[in-house]
Amino acid sequence: METIDEGGLPQLKALDWQAVILANGDFPQTGRALQILRSTQTLICCDGAYRPLRAEGIEPLAVVGDGDSIDPKDRQRLGARFHLVAEQADNDLTKAVRYAQGIGLRRLLVLGATGKREDHTLGNISLLEDYARMGLQVGMLTDHGLFLHCRGNATFPALAGQQISVFNLTCTGMESSGLRFPLYTLRKWWQGTLNEATGSTFSVTADGDYLIYFVQGKKNRFH
Amino acid sequence: METIDEGGLPQLKALDWQAVILANGDFPQTGRALQILRSTQTLICCDGAYRPLRAEGIEPLAVVGDGDSIDPKDRQRLGARFHLVAEQADNDLTKAVRYAQGIGLRRLLVLGATGKREDHTLGNISLLEDYARMGLQVGMLTDHGLFLHCRGNATFPALAGQQISVFNLTCTGMESSGLRFPLYTLRKWWQGTLNEATGSTFSVTADGDYLIYFVQGKKNRFH
Repeated sequence: METIDEGGLPQLKALDWQAVILANGDFPQTGRALQILRSTQTLICCDGAYRPLRAEGIEPLAVVGDGDSIDPKDRQRLGARFHLVAEQADNDLTKAVRYAQGIGLRRLLVLGATGKREDHTLGNISLLEDYARMGLQVGMLTDHGLFLHCRGNATFPALAGQQISVFNLTCTGMESSGLRFPLYTLRKWWQGTLNEATGSTFSVTADGDYLIYFVQGKKNRFH
Repeated sequence: METIDEGGLPQLKALDWQAVILANGDFPQTGRALQILRSTQTLICCDGAYRPLRAEGIEPLAVVGDGDSIDPKDRQRLGARFHLVAEQADNDLTKAVRYAQGIGLRRLLVLGATGKREDHTLGNISLLEDYARMGLQVGMLTDHGLFLHCRGNATFPALAGQQISVFNLTCTGMESSGLRFPLYTLRKWWQGTLNEATGSTFSVTADGDYLIYFVQGKKNRFH
C-alpha cells in the first residue's frame, strides 16, 4: 500500500488497518479518503456504495448487503464478488464488518459512514462500540475527522491545537491530561465537544467505553 | 407566514414555531427548508451561517455569535442586528436559542444544525434535551428529517411506512404501539434506528427523555 497522507490526523497511522470498508453515507470527498480507496488491496463495499465507487473507477474486493440498494446490472457484473446477507437485524455496515471478520480481518477502517440521514450517522457511529466487543479495531474516517472507540486508560498522539471531542458511552469516571478543558464524567454528547489538545499527546483516564473524535488539522473553528 | 410544504413530514405542522434559527452546519438544500427561511418573519442566524444566508438573498432579524465566524464587513453591515455573545461555555446554536428565549420566543425550529463536523452534529442534536429543560419546544429540521425531543408518553402523527428512529436519553422503560418493531428500553443509539410507522399515528410509552427522528417521506431505504 502506498503511504497515506496523515497530515493533520496523526491518529490515523496507529490504526494499521488490514481492510477498508466503504459504507452507504456520503461518498468520501477528501483527497486522503480517495487515496485510501484507490490504494487499498482489501476494499469491502456496502452494496449501496458500489455505484459511486465504480463511478470513481474503483473496484472493490467484495460488495456486501441485502441487495435492496444495488442495481441488478451491477449485481450481475459483480458475480461472485457480491455477497448477499438477507437478514435484517444488522445494517449493511455491520454486514460488511462481519464479512471482513469472517475472512480473518480485524483491524478495519470505515469510510463513508456519515452524512445523508442523521439517524444512520448516529447508528453507525454507535456501532463502533459493538465492533470493539466483537474483538475488532475499527476506526471511522470522515471528511472532517476520525472516530475511534476506546476503553479505559489511553494515550493518544495529537497536534498541539488539534480539536478533540469525547463522547462518553459507559464510563462512570473520566479524567484527562493534555486537553485544554480537563475531562469530567460526561453525561451528554455536547459536553465533550470543542476540546483541544495542548501538546503532542493527551491521555484519558476512564473506567469504561468512550468515543474520541479527532478533527483533521489544527484549530478549525466552526461554531 | 405562507403555508409551508409539510408533505412527507406531517410532524412539522404540530410544532407551530414562533421563530426559526439557522445554525452553522450544512446550509439547508431542500425546497421546504429554503421556503421556511424565506418566509419566516423571525429568523435568527448563528454568525457563521450569515454568509450563505445572505448569498440566498435572505436577511435575518438578528445574528448571534462570538464574532469569530463572521466577516468584519458583514458584521458592520448588520449593525444593531448583530448580537455579540463572547462567553465560550455555550456554542453558537445555544447562544441563538438563548437570544430567542430572551425576546420571549419559546417554540423554535432549528435549521442547518447538522452536516460538516460530526462532533458538532452530535452536540447540536443532544442540545435538544437541554432546550427542553429550559422550557422551550425546539424541533430540528434537516435535509433528511426532523428531530424532536420528547419526554414521557406521547402520540405522534405519521405516514404509514414512514421511517422512524428513536434515541433513548434517560428512559429506563420504553414501549411503543404503531411501530413495525416494538420499542424496548434502548441502550445504544443504533438500536432504535430503521423502525417504521405502520399507520397514521404511533405512540411511545416511556419514563424519561428520548429523541425521535422522523424521516421525510415514506419508505426511503438507505441501508
